[in-house]
Amino acid sequence: MKVPLPDRVTLTEICPRDGFQNIKTWIPSETKLQVIDRLIDAGLRSFEITSFVSPKAIPQMADAADVSAHVLKRIARDNLELDAVALAPNLRGATAAHAAGLSHISYVISASAAHNKANINRTHEESLADLDTIVKTYPGLHVTLSMSTVFGCPFVGAITVEQVLWLIEEGVKRGARDVALCDTIGVANPLQTAVLIDAVRATFPTLEIALHMHDTHGMALANMLVGLQRGVTRFETAAGGLGGCPFAPGAAGNAATEDTVNMLHRMGVATGVDLARHLRAVELIGEKIQPNLMGHLANARSYSEFDFWPKNKGESHG
Amino acid sequence: MKVPLPDRVTLTEICPRDGFQNIKTWIPSETKLQVIDRLIDAGLRSFEITSFVSPKAIPQMADAADVSAHVLKRIARDNLELDAVALAPNLRGATAAHAAGLSHISYVISASAAHNKANINRTHEESLADLDTIVKTYPGLHVTLSMSTVFGCPFVGAITVEQVLWLIEEGVKRGARDVALCDTIGVANPLQTAVLIDAVRATFPTLEIALHMHDTHGMALANMLVGLQRGVTRFETAAGGLGGCPFAPGAAGNAATEDTVNMLHRMGVATGVDLARHLRAVELIGEKIQPNLMGHLANARSYSEFDFWPKNKGESHG
Repeated sequence: MKVPLPDRVTLTEICPRDGFQNIKTWIPSETKLQVIDRLIDAGLRSFEITSFVSPKAIPQMADAADVSAHVLKRIARDNLELDAVALAPNLRGATAAHAAGLSHISYVISASAAHNKANINRTHEESLADLDTIVKTYPGLHVTLSMSTVFGCPFVGAITVEQVLWLIEEGVKRGARDVALCDTIGVANPLQTAVLIDAVRATFPTLEIALHMHDTHGMALANMLVGLQRGVTRFETAAGGLGGCPFAPGAAGNAATEDTVNMLHRMGVATGVDLARHLRAVELIGEKIQPNLMGHLANARSYSEFDFWPKNKGESHG
Repeated sequence: MKVPLPDRVTLTEICPRDGFQNIKTWIPSETKLQVIDRLIDAGLRSFEITSFVSPKAIPQMADAADVSAHVLKRIARDNLELDAVALAPNLRGATAAHAAGLSHISYVISASAAHNKANINRTHEESLADLDTIVKTYPGLHVTLSMSTVFGCPFVGAITVEQVLWLIEEGVKRGARDVALCDTIGVANPLQTAVLIDAVRATFPTLEIALHMHDTHGMALANMLVGLQRGVTRFETAAGGLGGCPFAPGAAGNAATEDTVNMLHRMGVATGVDLARHLRAVELIGEKIQPNLMGHLANARSYSEFDFWPKNKGESHG
């Protein structure tokens, strides 16, 4: 590569939030917690564990407080350095997350006004006003701007770079600490990703950027590669490739954590994840939640035992 | 991107060879030809149309001469500039391809000696000796070195860069004109792809390189992106993502032509392919040959109507 890749990145495991919220049948809290426990066992230390949203809109997330309590107990018991994040779309969600003992939220807002309305029934102005109140009310709360439809919207199509920069600025000036650029419907291409990252970096040089890529058109890993080449060190991925968006018709799953870990490790980029243990969590997801996993590695299972790289020993001629 | 991407690339459509050869039940020649015709209609102008191999080893390719005759007739009828290539693993295959009227073969040889033996039952020395004879016997024949297991072997694991360079040198000095670097089992990572391309370029600065990536671990598009960033302008892809290797257990399909076209067009790289028409060929493959297509776009179908990029008009704030 022309640009050296980072030595290490953080993967934020979003299966418990973005993955589970798209499963229509109720997943018992116990199963959710088993999966989260296995993912922690695999070495993941950053999670979107749940979502504090209206249980009418997304019944699957009705146990947000219970899930949070469990994870916080596990953190205390094992003395883990684990970043437990909950999604919140408004003041009410942030208040509930804070009450549940969490200190970090993903504040969701769509780059597309049309999708913001469809997804969380708010105008940009309403979303930004709530953000103001949240930061003022809970000054210790780490608020990540989780920006949906940054690379394209299911309702209006293209989103301009200027639109994204405008919304980041509005968020940052209200106290958001960092931003996740989310390709909610999985249509970003690598050049687009490069251009957007470069534009955000140029305008907000010290802002930490994460990428959240869905794999609808198979470009998720290519887009993350472009992020890596630009020094992005946080990626939001979902075990088993679960995910979508309840209010973005046709969106496919997230980049699978295991596919991402596989690519990163083979390139010598550390994640802290034990891939074999992670695949045991994926196995559990396949057994109990979603038999049709969307990632590649979990379906292939072949060749994961081989070290093709970077040792690069093996057969030679002569 | 730091490196400008090429304006235009050639996609060699390998579904009729690499795709079909992995379908266990006989595909009637008429169906094969219908698919090829639709792929030509979509604008593809470079094809691996068939394989001249032992019908005992790969019964699916028994109609190689018929398929070749049809394609040559279509080329003549429509006065097409179309590169019709057949795979040949030995002198016998090259002779048959030549007799069928073809002027271009993919001469298959594995970087791994173990896979060369399993795949075509030859040592490297035997393969190279036949190459010598082929080039001397058919001096007008364009011979592309189609090098399997370049990024990893199902039997021995890693393949060294030196091994690949050695085999390219042996091939080129015997008259091979260009080389396709094939990730037969789909395990290459982007850094590995970059390192290998750079090494080949450094040693053979004028040699034309093509990439042939399988998508077992989901990295095919990321690997092709790295090739694009290095100026590679030919990629071998298969409609519907069909493919594998009959003698490489567990290998998954090729990068789907439609996924590749989608990524390239969205980045402004021309292919000459009409994506909508191409999807009609994929539809036919799904109906008549393989209901479980492996590519992303054909399964998603969503959002292909939107122009997310590069026009990048659309919603803006205010």
